Amino acid sequence: MKKNIILASTSTVFGQPYLSYLKEELEILFADAKEIIFIPYARPGGISHDDYTAKAAAFFKEIRVAVKGLHNFDDPISALQNCQGIFTGGGNTFLLVKQLHELNILPTLRSVVDNGVPYLGTSAGSNLGGMTMQTTNDMPIVYPPSFETAGWVPFNLNPHYLDPIPGTTHMGETRETRIAEFHTQNSIPVVGLREGSWVRVTDHKIKLGGPLTARIFEQGKQPYELSPGASIEFA
Amino acid sequence: MKKNIILASTSTVFGQPYLSYLKEELEILFADAKEIIFIPYARPGGISHDDYTAKAAAFFKEIRVAVKGLHNFDDPISALQNCQGIFTGGGNTFLLVKQLHELNILPTLRSVVDNGVPYLGTSAGSNLGGMTMQTTNDMPIVYPPSFETAGWVPFNLNPHYLDPIPGTTHMGETRETRIAEFHTQNSIPVVGLREGSWVRVTDHKIKLGGPLTARIFEQGKQPYELSPGASIEFA
Repeated sequence: MKKNIILASTSTVFGQPYLSYLKEELEILFADAKEIIFIPYARPGGISHDDYTAKAAAFFKEIRVAVKGLHNFDDPISALQNCQGIFTGGGNTFLLVKQLHELNILPTLRSVVDNGVPYLGTSAGSNLGGMTMQTTNDMPIVYPPSFETAGWVPFNLNPHYLDPIPGTTHMGETRETRIAEFHTQNSIPVVGLREGSWVRVTDHKIKLGGPLTARIFEQGKQPYELSPGASIEFA
Repeated sequence: MKKNIILASTSTVFGQPYLSYLKEELEILFADAKEIIFIPYARPGGISHDDYTAKAAAFFKEIRVAVKGLHNFDDPISALQNCQGIFTGGGNTFLLVKQLHELNILPTLRSVVDNGVPYLGTSAGSNLGGMTMQTTNDMPIVYPPSFETAGWVPFNLNPHYLDPIPGTTHMGETRETRIAEFHTQNSIPVVGLREGSWVRVTDHKIKLGGPLTARIFEQGKQPYELSPGASIEFA
């Protein structure tokens, strides 16, 4: 076990180009990779697999890493087994997880990353790293055969975590209320990752990356804040 | 076919007691009912079935309608077949739909409401009236055996509809983007119901209730606004 993973809340922080806030981290994560595989299945806004892959490739060119879309391989299992790195982009988590289950890719993806292939996920691609996709913010636009995800970390993520808006008159549930409802049915801890934060996994160590605190939700406890750089551990 | 249905965006508008903004409409909807059945399975915030039923009963006492929780009947199918009205409260749509499928209640519920038993839904309870639950805002905290719902109206609902927030720096998808993603995978029209709006079904007529416009999403078209009181129809 020598995991090497970044699970980021978002691909893009406000006012900055795609992935640019993570550039230094990604130069480290993919230091030994000349080419990585992009998993485009979450298709944000319905973008095509080709266009989404081109968007990722345009960024990675800046750090001299080539990008190929997983949808372009005749044998995606073999492609994953022989790759130097993997990036799963954001979009709709239901769409992403349905495809991975239907193509029977998840066991291989889980295994190669468990064995050290560097992995970057953003948003839906980060949900993939948790135990289940059950704390996604996305709409259930398709019906996946299972909500199970890769489980590289022993918790779930809530990307794009939003604090309650003071003085709002909107009566829809806050993010915190939604996660509390999750904990009426499930015991998996949840890390609420604000935009600009990421989870960094190296070997067995899991730390909070970025300049912000994260909000931690454990079943039966009051939610609390975790400091930047702190280990993410549950008893 | 003599449907008599209200599907409301929310149970509660800001600053007012539970259901009070709908009081006059509910006196009409349940004019012939002395007692109605409450379906508490969506359990907002994890409230118990008994507590949630008591909350509904406290409001309905004001309009002289008694309330019994569906969870209290030994034979829920027979209870629905013999009732004078039905109210499904809001909460988590996944939890609600999972229970209805697992208890095999949906076919009976669909049929009695199709045949004229008055029905009120709020929020998750309104999603139940659409074709599928796939435009819910809720988290997938449990895995239902299907996303199919009752289909009393030939479209889906998005309750608590929210317009994009001008000047936001948050990079999560807007509600409009989420619904556009739904339409990359599905052709069912979606009615974005703002808080304070409801869908009123009488016989074959479907109208927009409340003082606000609704936002209408059809696959392949620009979203548009529908006026209060207008018919909700799709070609």
